[in-house]
Amino acid sequence: MPWFYEPYHDISAVGIHVTELLHHEQSAFQDIKVYETVGHGRLLLLDDMVMLTELDEFVYHDLITHVPLCIHRDPKQVLVVGGGDGGTIREVLKHPGVERVVLCEIDERVTRVCQRWIPSVAGELEDPRVELVFADAVEYVRSHVDSFDAVLVDSSEPIGPAAGLFEGSFFADLRKALRPGGIVSAQTESPFYAADTVRGVYNEIRGVFRQVHGYIGSIPTYPSGCWTFALASDDRGPADVDLTRAAALQCKYFNAGIARGAFALPEFVRRLIDPA
Amino acid sequence: MPWFYEPYHDISAVGIHVTELLHHEQSAFQDIKVYETVGHGRLLLLDDMVMLTELDEFVYHDLITHVPLCIHRDPKQVLVVGGGDGGTIREVLKHPGVERVVLCEIDERVTRVCQRWIPSVAGELEDPRVELVFADAVEYVRSHVDSFDAVLVDSSEPIGPAAGLFEGSFFADLRKALRPGGIVSAQTESPFYAADTVRGVYNEIRGVFRQVHGYIGSIPTYPSGCWTFALASDDRGPADVDLTRAAALQCKYFNAGIARGAFALPEFVRRLIDPA
Repeated sequence: MPWFYEPYHDISAVGIHVTELLHHEQSAFQDIKVYETVGHGRLLLLDDMVMLTELDEFVYHDLITHVPLCIHRDPKQVLVVGGGDGGTIREVLKHPGVERVVLCEIDERVTRVCQRWIPSVAGELEDPRVELVFADAVEYVRSHVDSFDAVLVDSSEPIGPAAGLFEGSFFADLRKALRPGGIVSAQTESPFYAADTVRGVYNEIRGVFRQVHGYIGSIPTYPSGCWTFALASDDRGPADVDLTRAAALQCKYFNAGIARGAFALPEFVRRLIDPA
Repeated sequence: MPWFYEPYHDISAVGIHVTELLHHEQSAFQDIKVYETVGHGRLLLLDDMVMLTELDEFVYHDLITHVPLCIHRDPKQVLVVGGGDGGTIREVLKHPGVERVVLCEIDERVTRVCQRWIPSVAGELEDPRVELVFADAVEYVRSHVDSFDAVLVDSSEPIGPAAGLFEGSFFADLRKALRPGGIVSAQTESPFYAADTVRGVYNEIRGVFRQVHGYIGSIPTYPSGCWTFALASDDRGPADVDLTRAAALQCKYFNAGIARGAFALPEFVRRLIDPA
């Protein structure tokens, strides 16, 4: 049986034993593949980069969602930028106070493919609280002011369709899209293999928000397995976490200990993210 | 140029781009290889399993060493079980109170190969505080009672020469080898790909020590990149950490935040390690 390998900058690779190519198409934006695997459940590739496997997607989706939503005082209106697979939406819907969550994904095909082939991840997109918007998030965010309590930037790599989601101007627009007390999370790549990207994106975010914090998790099928996330806000930080709400969630990765512990950064990561 | 792949249970693989096989021998215990790589510095393989790369070895060595030594009240006599590459010894020697550290490695060839080819890791083994013992640690530990403040079990996988280091009888002997207030750390595999091993080894350790805690770190070149460690003691636990000593160490991974934060376990890991 074949293996899929994602090489990273020609120095390392993540290998996944696959059994069958279930779906393959070229959308208007990217190449989309879904494989069945031996030990990872279904695998979603965009432009031959691992977006998720069913074995470990919970780590990413828990961290990008529950950390900010448990730090916000009472999130009701949530925007997910990217995240077409639906995993972040699934986690947002676990928060009983959320009244509406908008998914703004540039590539409708990603969502439709995941609804067909990876329902364990995309299966909550029909919830009445969910609004699907297939559009460029840069435009969408620019045209929404004072609208959201939390924005979760669930982007792919900073090359290809997601490049604009790592720029300071995008974060400035995000800040305007927030309601008072609002909060942003964003995936910010691997500190082992993409140190310059990590350093650069935190510089961009720090230029916009008063409070910027990094947090971290282990995602086996992403390059290096070590992944960073940013939390940005003008008002709220890790110390504001509601541990009662955190403990009440039923998650596979996130819990009240992680709500605080994910902000304990290894020294080399701390120096990248918070050089002061 | 060639790649080295370590497949894991036929479901995933870690790939490292290598350039040159610097050394290869079959010792009395195992196959030993050292490669030069494109982006990971030197790579040490034992029986074709990644033991370390110079890019990320600091994570493992920091965690197995500094977490227990900063929790012990005042470690003076330390034993490293396995760890023939010398990386754990290098970190132990950063603690000014340590008077003597014994390396008990079954395979002298591992140590000699690392001294020759990976001096960034093995380069502190000539320190006068270090005592090298090339022997079976199971026998060595059994014959030493009330001798050590800390024992760091820096073993390879629980197959091959290290299998005995994961058994309850070994931990019972370790407990007798400790002086009052003594503490043990041990590497305990990946919670993603070796859940049964993790669960099993914690059951063994819990049968011996009054306090057993799991902690965690991100090691890119180990299977899944997510690695667990055990802290075991009759007297000391995470809350006893000396944050002043932790903050004074100069490390690339460990710091005072990690000294506490590494014990924040993802929910699925917590359930494996601490099912109560």
